[in-house]
Amino acid sequence: MGCTELAGASPRPPRGFRDFPPDLMILRKRLLSRVESVFQRYGFDPIDTPAVEYWETLAGKYGEEAENRLIWRFTDKWSGREYALRYDLTVPMARFVATHRDIPMPFKRYHIGPVWRHEEPQKGRYREFYQCDADIVGSPHPEADAEIVELVIDVIRELGFTSGFKVRLNDRRLLRGIFEDELGLSNAILPVYRAIDKLDKIGIDGVRSELQKIGLQESTVDKIVEIISIQGDPGKLLGEVSKRYGDNHLVRDAIKYLERIIGLVDSSSVVVDLSLVRGLDYYTGPILEVVLDKPRIGSVAGGGRYDGLIGIFAGTQIPATGASIGIERIIDAGLELGLYTLKQKTVTEAIVIVLDKEVYNYAWKVAKVLRKGGVKTRIDLSMSSPGVQRRKAQKLGIRLLVYVGAKEAEMGTVTIYDSISRERREVKLGEAGKAAREMLSS
Amino acid sequence: MGCTELAGASPRPPRGFRDFPPDLMILRKRLLSRVESVFQRYGFDPIDTPAVEYWETLAGKYGEEAENRLIWRFTDKWSGREYALRYDLTVPMARFVATHRDIPMPFKRYHIGPVWRHEEPQKGRYREFYQCDADIVGSPHPEADAEIVELVIDVIRELGFTSGFKVRLNDRRLLRGIFEDELGLSNAILPVYRAIDKLDKIGIDGVRSELQKIGLQESTVDKIVEIISIQGDPGKLLGEVSKRYGDNHLVRDAIKYLERIIGLVDSSSVVVDLSLVRGLDYYTGPILEVVLDKPRIGSVAGGGRYDGLIGIFAGTQIPATGASIGIERIIDAGLELGLYTLKQKTVTEAIVIVLDKEVYNYAWKVAKVLRKGGVKTRIDLSMSSPGVQRRKAQKLGIRLLVYVGAKEAEMGTVTIYDSISRERREVKLGEAGKAAREMLSS
Repeated sequence: MGCTELAGASPRPPRGFRDFPPDLMILRKRLLSRVESVFQRYGFDPIDTPAVEYWETLAGKYGEEAENRLIWRFTDKWSGREYALRYDLTVPMARFVATHRDIPMPFKRYHIGPVWRHEEPQKGRYREFYQCDADIVGSPHPEADAEIVELVIDVIRELGFTSGFKVRLNDRRLLRGIFEDELGLSNAILPVYRAIDKLDKIGIDGVRSELQKIGLQESTVDKIVEIISIQGDPGKLLGEVSKRYGDNHLVRDAIKYLERIIGLVDSSSVVVDLSLVRGLDYYTGPILEVVLDKPRIGSVAGGGRYDGLIGIFAGTQIPATGASIGIERIIDAGLELGLYTLKQKTVTEAIVIVLDKEVYNYAWKVAKVLRKGGVKTRIDLSMSSPGVQRRKAQKLGIRLLVYVGAKEAEMGTVTIYDSISRERREVKLGEAGKAAREMLSS
Repeated sequence: MGCTELAGASPRPPRGFRDFPPDLMILRKRLLSRVESVFQRYGFDPIDTPAVEYWETLAGKYGEEAENRLIWRFTDKWSGREYALRYDLTVPMARFVATHRDIPMPFKRYHIGPVWRHEEPQKGRYREFYQCDADIVGSPHPEADAEIVELVIDVIRELGFTSGFKVRLNDRRLLRGIFEDELGLSNAILPVYRAIDKLDKIGIDGVRSELQKIGLQESTVDKIVEIISIQGDPGKLLGEVSKRYGDNHLVRDAIKYLERIIGLVDSSSVVVDLSLVRGLDYYTGPILEVVLDKPRIGSVAGGGRYDGLIGIFAGTQIPATGASIGIERIIDAGLELGLYTLKQKTVTEAIVIVLDKEVYNYAWKVAKVLRKGGVKTRIDLSMSSPGVQRRKAQKLGIRLLVYVGAKEAEMGTVTIYDSISRERREVKLGEAGKAAREMLSS
């Protein structure tokens, strides 16, 4: 059976894409609004950019794999122009800053929206997913990076992960200073980074054997293993690194910079981790990642400083630093840990149950009064029997059942039943909103 | 100069696409959240669907123009599969209902998100724009349509257009019953609809001459002109139509149906308008449009009943009705009328001005306390002089300036200056959040 037939028989979203039914959407919206409120609390302002960019805007920014395999790229059949769906929110933001040169600096922006990647779909990996980015443009100072670290910690906490996570912190200059300059690994640097990046997954012996496979000298392997094995609190760790490689100017700069960051932030959840590499090409300074203790699902947030990226568009160097929260993984993790549930199936708080079709117009008025009173209200639209109306309401989990029959219509009242407390109140129509709100908040 | 060079020299969003800087985003977010709150007040639940659908999901649903010219359609170069960016939120929702057959009926969903159209860009017409849709799936009753009409009126009011708008209401069955059955125009029906659709723009004489150009008999032209010229309140107008064409069963059904809708809704802003046609193929019953008295920018909302669309995907008939709010046009209109402004350039309410770099760490703590207290707070990240910090804050319009210098650090206080009331308060650090909130709400 061909694809077209399949799609006709049982229509699906495209492979790797997802629908979000109300239960999942209600949860997502609640969590995204928490992320947004933290972003705003730090004085970040919202922007939006198009889903579609010219191909040349994205080209050459992410590295080979993304560019050749992961960007949704297409030719417009009318104009022949090449377009791409945005791959992240960072490069569009860099383009945005270059387009809007009058924007006051430092520019603190957040952007919450979908991005598209031509991934091979698998569990937890989708072709369309949301990113929640906050970036500070125009400050070359570690204070900006410290603010990003603190912001990320606050977001993760606000999402319910009050402990059980850590922020891994490193600096691209440390990596370059130690591995490229001091150990002279420039030629084999990518496989080396790839090997040490796996420390978390395969342990120190695993990394050692990966490094041996690359064909490095045993003494070099020893030095790499030694440096990425240093443990301890950030201050002590940086002291050790300084003792060994402090003569290198990149290492010296990075240590001073990281010490300033650590001096400002709540460092109880921060670790300096020399095995943190991060994939993207554009990072130039500190880099960070947030990992949960459990479940082990990779990083749930990541970011760093990228002082060169905006310059590609703007023509002059504009420093920038930021982070991206991976809300999809956080939702998966929170559901797995029982922090979140999908129990809420509707936003509806009250439903008007019409006991007698003769009084439908009065019931309509009741719904109107409740809505005006700020109560999220449905009314029967199926002309069903009272029993069916009640069963439908229960299935959705609507809390208040507002009964309207001939008696209520005649008396100008409503009967409100709270399916949680099992309280029942008969009130005048004019007081229905107030009564319902009281019952909802009890 | 070629396009590539241009894009390199001054990077822009693609033609017909837009960036949203903070001032516009802050306004949009505020308005979209009002729309959303009305949707929720009526008990509509959020869903989301992918930006990308299989081409065959969208094909054959909108009519020729959209299908051949307006849908962003592309071939994936890896799989050869044909995809399309969603053209509206209605067809994806119909596909969604067929994909999720277990969803309880009636299904009341809202969806706020971007759609893409391959338009020739012009003032107020973009290739990417937001739609705000609310639909009721599973009810064949006029009560559902009445709820949509009432919802749309409430949304428009909530957006600040308290009067100065009207809801135009018609029914596809009236059009078919009168023009196709009774006047026998089935063969020339599209040009006839196109002509009467212009009544608002070109007046009744304009429509007459358009109809004559089609080559209709003069007596037919007279009958058309006569029927679309009937004025008056909805009840009276439907009475007139009934007198003339009430023998036709489609006309009879439509009139009964429209009368039920009008009997339920606040009809002061509703007119029945026999010249309302609406472009999309999929409507089957009542159709509606909201137009503002001024500015004359076409409709700002539209919708109707489409009982056949979901069946194409689901295999069985599932009735549905809904409406879409055109938030871009509403923003343009509101800005033009002075209902909205772009004055707010940041969400930030307070900025910590560091008077002395020596006390930066204390200032950092102040920012933290303010944020914890719910105040949207920035702190200097540029290591600028106090004067520059103040000027930057003023440029963004940040209300509270929170001064922190050596004195404050020593005393454990902060000095808060309200740039609106010009009040200045020195308070203990622990009371900074409370004091700032008080000043903000005064």
